[in-house]
Amino acid sequence: MSGNTFGKSFTLTTYGESHGPALGGVIDGCPAGVPIAIETIQEELNRRKPGQSAIVTQRKEPDTVEIYSGVFDGKSTGTPIGFVIHNTNQKSKDYTHIKDSYRPSHADYVYDQKYGFRDYRGGGRSSARETAARVVAGSIAKQLISPIEIQAFVSAVGELTLPNPEGISDYSFIEQNPVRCPDKAMAAEMETYIKQVRKDGDTVGGVITCVAKNVPVGLGEPVFDKLHAVLGQAMLSINAVKGFEYGSGFAGAVLRGSAHNDLYNEDGTTKTNNSGGVQGGISNGMDIYFNVAFKPVATIMQSQETIDNKGETVTMEGKGRHDPCVVPRAVPIVEAMTALVLADFTLRNKNAKL
Amino acid sequence: MSGNTFGKSFTLTTYGESHGPALGGVIDGCPAGVPIAIETIQEELNRRKPGQSAIVTQRKEPDTVEIYSGVFDGKSTGTPIGFVIHNTNQKSKDYTHIKDSYRPSHADYVYDQKYGFRDYRGGGRSSARETAARVVAGSIAKQLISPIEIQAFVSAVGELTLPNPEGISDYSFIEQNPVRCPDKAMAAEMETYIKQVRKDGDTVGGVITCVAKNVPVGLGEPVFDKLHAVLGQAMLSINAVKGFEYGSGFAGAVLRGSAHNDLYNEDGTTKTNNSGGVQGGISNGMDIYFNVAFKPVATIMQSQETIDNKGETVTMEGKGRHDPCVVPRAVPIVEAMTALVLADFTLRNKNAKL
Amino acid sequence: MSGNTFGKSFTLTTYGESHGPALGGVIDGCPAGVPIAIETIQEELNRRKPGQSAIVTQRKEPDTVEIYSGVFDGKSTGTPIGFVIHNTNQKSKDYTHIKDSYRPSHADYVYDQKYGFRDYRGGGRSSARETAARVVAGSIAKQLISPIEIQAFVSAVGELTLPNPEGISDYSFIEQNPVRCPDKAMAAEMETYIKQVRKDGDTVGGVITCVAKNVPVGLGEPVFDKLHAVLGQAMLSINAVKGFEYGSGFAGAVLRGSAHNDLYNEDGTTKTNNSGGVQGGISNGMDIYFNVAFKPVATIMQSQETIDNKGETVTMEGKGRHDPCVVPRAVPIVEAMTALVLADFTLRNKNAKL
Amino acid sequence: MSGNTFGKSFTLTTYGESHGPALGGVIDGCPAGVPIAIETIQEELNRRKPGQSAIVTQRKEPDTVEIYSGVFDGKSTGTPIGFVIHNTNQKSKDYTHIKDSYRPSHADYVYDQKYGFRDYRGGGRSSARETAARVVAGSIAKQLISPIEIQAFVSAVGELTLPNPEGISDYSFIEQNPVRCPDKAMAAEMETYIKQVRKDGDTVGGVITCVAKNVPVGLGEPVFDKLHAVLGQAMLSINAVKGFEYGSGFAGAVLRGSAHNDLYNEDGTTKTNNSGGVQGGISNGMDIYFNVAFKPVATIMQSQETIDNKGETVTMEGKGRHDPCVVPRAVPIVEAMTALVLADFTLRNKNAKL
Repeated sequence: MSGNTFGKSFTLTTYGESHGPALGGVIDGCPAGVPIAIETIQEELNRRKPGQSAIVTQRKEPDTVEIYSGVFDGKSTGTPIGFVIHNTNQKSKDYTHIKDSYRPSHADYVYDQKYGFRDYRGGGRSSARETAARVVAGSIAKQLISPIEIQAFVSAVGELTLPNPEGISDYSFIEQNPVRCPDKAMAAEMETYIKQVRKDGDTVGGVITCVAKNVPVGLGEPVFDKLHAVLGQAMLSINAVKGFEYGSGFAGAVLRGSAHNDLYNEDGTTKTNNSGGVQGGISNGMDIYFNVAFKPVATIMQSQETIDNKGETVTMEGKGRHDPCVVPRAVPIVEAMTALVLADFTLRNKNAKL
Repeated sequence: MSGNTFGKSFTLTTYGESHGPALGGVIDGCPAGVPIAIETIQEELNRRKPGQSAIVTQRKEPDTVEIYSGVFDGKSTGTPIGFVIHNTNQKSKDYTHIKDSYRPSHADYVYDQKYGFRDYRGGGRSSARETAARVVAGSIAKQLISPIEIQAFVSAVGELTLPNPEGISDYSFIEQNPVRCPDKAMAAEMETYIKQVRKDGDTVGGVITCVAKNVPVGLGEPVFDKLHAVLGQAMLSINAVKGFEYGSGFAGAVLRGSAHNDLYNEDGTTKTNNSGGVQGGISNGMDIYFNVAFKPVATIMQSQETIDNKGETVTMEGKGRHDPCVVPRAVPIVEAMTALVLADFTLRNKNAKL
Repeated sequence: MSGNTFGKSFTLTTYGESHGPALGGVIDGCPAGVPIAIETIQEELNRRKPGQSAIVTQRKEPDTVEIYSGVFDGKSTGTPIGFVIHNTNQKSKDYTHIKDSYRPSHADYVYDQKYGFRDYRGGGRSSARETAARVVAGSIAKQLISPIEIQAFVSAVGELTLPNPEGISDYSFIEQNPVRCPDKAMAAEMETYIKQVRKDGDTVGGVITCVAKNVPVGLGEPVFDKLHAVLGQAMLSINAVKGFEYGSGFAGAVLRGSAHNDLYNEDGTTKTNNSGGVQGGISNGMDIYFNVAFKPVATIMQSQETIDNKGETVTMEGKGRHDPCVVPRAVPIVEAMTALVLADFTLRNKNAKL
Repeated sequence: MSGNTFGKSFTLTTYGESHGPALGGVIDGCPAGVPIAIETIQEELNRRKPGQSAIVTQRKEPDTVEIYSGVFDGKSTGTPIGFVIHNTNQKSKDYTHIKDSYRPSHADYVYDQKYGFRDYRGGGRSSARETAARVVAGSIAKQLISPIEIQAFVSAVGELTLPNPEGISDYSFIEQNPVRCPDKAMAAEMETYIKQVRKDGDTVGGVITCVAKNVPVGLGEPVFDKLHAVLGQAMLSINAVKGFEYGSGFAGAVLRGSAHNDLYNEDGTTKTNNSGGVQGGISNGMDIYFNVAFKPVATIMQSQETIDNKGETVTMEGKGRHDPCVVPRAVPIVEAMTALVLADFTLRNKNAKL
């Protein structure tokens, strides 16, 4: 059983390699009657696309989405929504250097071992290009579950860390800076740092924080499909993610119960939100928030020793146009996966009581 | 769609409330011919059971497992393995104080909101007692996937943190101390600390580290069912877990690519293991390791203000016999969920190539 | 992936061999708040149990169901419903004659080939005893989907065939005769015939017709999970079933479109019902009806030549207490599977439109 | 949960309406290393396409398949295979007559009821055009599971019925006549009859028989996913199918056990094959054979009374280019669904024993 489908009621199946003719997906389970604005989907895709600023990869890919089915007269019909993004930039590259060799901390080696061979052009299926399909589906999910609001942003780049990110209330600056950090001063610092890293021929990791507001009480399906557990899987399935924590997270492990417990107000809200909006795997109506850690991009513009598929040591030169730091462009991907999770649990929750 | 089934090829479906007649589960997909030792299962269950030491809950529950099907002449038959643990300690309790009121940072409130009512006795389905079924199934999974070795241990209790837990090579002390910490000095400190916390009528969180050795290359199913993504879901589905990180984890987000990349040896192993044994969602043959953060147990032996189901403020007294720190008893649960994930991916991987 | 789970939103997972300690199942996805009467479940089980009349097997099995979880204060809680039926009659049998030999038209041979060995006692997992768990779950499904009414009955035994079974409107006699045929004269003929077949040491096949009334418009999920397609799978999964047809069925293949089309009344009902209540895989509000063909029971009280597990010819004598005709006891099983299908589609349909 | 995915290990998800931009699908779970010949796929599609002979619809659709992913250097890569067939004939039609009215025995009415509205152009998702995607996937499945041979053919058109179709051994004439009947004389009769039916402005039903040879012992997953049960679902999910029977089928219900039982030869084959190649839901190595009943096409070239979406009676004239008899073009669809089922069970069976 392969793993290219996400969700149980609102499901996304994706396909496509970075350098094949096209990538895309099929959404099954979107209820009928949801207004679907294709411009809104394209805007989300544009937030993810290469070449959008000086601190991301300078590849040119328009990433234009086409809807093949499931939408009629501007609304979902209840039938599967097939969509496609044609690859337009995949022709002229030279992949000789990675065809027979394994880039360090890339998936080349394990794909060859698992499948016997691989589409070596640009990473093939293991390329983060696959996440474009997730952004398309996530945008449709967002349109389904409005008025839930999902906002992600960069809260750390390397050691530059925004304090108390879950407490930020003004998101207006996020889309106005290339880092997608909500704080002006920190955004400038991060941008400068990323440029330095790029100049060094290196890359750096970072952290994205995501907040979901207006989530109704009741989403999440114990015991295995707890809301935060599926959110965790969703985030960890994004390329380069190394960790996930929600609410108090790893810091909560240090606390005592008397300090950690969230006491109730009379309306069922809580005075604090160490729970991160989830109790026992079910949303409790408070803001859901979580952090996602990304490793530094593995492709660096430096020469590295590695091995080829005969097990011999070779030297590999860094080539191509790659992101020095993945988190700015990963912000819409984190939002998209969050939307997919919340859409799925919204539909699954309809069966909770008679 | 409810969420009480885990896995796709080796699946576990669990049922049962903490104070009903019994809890148990059904494993479907265990291949035929696996020797199943019921004593081994019982030994794993004993590692999880209450009353095993002075620093855990003093409830008495024998937690005796019975196999109803799927095992014949000491081997799995390929048919579903039904098993049960009868509840023997559920009769005489008084639950008046939680029937109509909502314990802070417990699931009482959200269950009432989602389902309309709940089995309020001892937490019902949201009780960690449910994890006993996971330990049974995990033990069977371990027997299926030997010679993979899975070892979890406590690496932090509150602020007491074992440095470099993934580097520990001697596991012999883990089962010889009630904390399940592999380091003698640290184990003693942690034990003393937990006793103090209990004396204070309080609880404290902690971290469990888990290492899986001898994992073959090739386990994990991109793109959504990456090995670490499903491990993350598995861990986050355990009661009280707040965070998951694998390999370099959150610390990896701070590093540069040149420092983070794992360079290859000629045999395909890597010189470092920031990847935590997983590349692109697929095991690469190195040790898999990860950390799991647990919040402090929500039930404290102190009075707290809370609300009842009419939304009125009430004072709730701490009652009953609860763990002051959940991590010692959670060690076998973390191992069990790891085994379930690896067993499932082992079977799923059989179809990777012709 | 094994196949012991049925349904997608209302799911039943069964376990158990005919001669192990117990058989049972887990229902996941039953919404909270459904009144569950255990006596009603037991009554359905009694319709299936052995020894109920002179024309069925004379084995004695009380088939008493116990509910382990998911029901509290007489209502479903939304958590999984675990249930069990202990086997009480499995001790003293002698299975020497089938341990090493393969009964003709039984599953002995294919189980040995597929799994390497088998629980040979009384058919193990391939025994129709497994359907007891389906009847339990089906009864709970019926309680969920009332006011849908499901009625099955015997419409043929061997060559004795009830004409126009879907037109029968009086079901009152069905439970008043051991054959479960709604027509008094035909029931008597069938009963006499079955007794003669038994006296001959032989068995005979038959047909069950099932009608579901008060089904709302909209159940069924194109394109693969059409209502009649999943009903077909459900029926064909019952032991001994060889064919399924709905509405006009095989007879419809002979007709012309001008004769077969169901013309509409102004209220959306149709003047005829060749569609059998299903159009394009979705219920149209008319009665659903279908026929299920059962082969003759393979165990006959005659000696047959067969082979043993070394491939040598042996003579096998008919032994034990078996049904001369399976259809009377299969009536509640057909109803149960119908209820499972309709319950599942009822829950799945809640997401059809916003 | 929608129902546009078929299979569990080798899965096909389809999308597309008859008159949208394109239809297609995604296959997930095809192992790596399978040689995939796109010409072979196109040849199968050509067997299904409109306009291929004088007795089928005269619409012109080239039905050209494009592969978007999952195939590299002529072999499957183990990643999802995305494919598409662009609709090229969908522009100029006039659908006013069906936009607001419900064609008798079509899915128009139930789609409107279930989803609130529908893509009314040419049947939308309920059009048999959707099966083109199944034929593509089925062809890939056939390439995976060779040397299994699957052959379907027309065994009845209206009352013209081929006797003993499962006994036919010469398949050479099937693709040499437009009816796809293996018998020359009967094929000519059927062709003449279909032409007469068309001249009458009418349609007629029929039966397809399918035989699978060289199927290994062991395919099928009891208890719910018995081989014949999933085959039944697969066939019943094809547009216009009303019934399914395998082996002795409905005729077997008339027999006595002493006549019906298949006695073994010493090599494990059986002297007769009333079982149709399946015992207890598992293939036994004998030929699998089954019959599929198709109703007459609902669109007739005659005026019919029907209702519009306000519930008022209207007269509808037959329009367009439709098949007078669906079975000739359904032959490759039956084969495709058979291949999907056998491919899925082949992969699922790898887990049967250690």
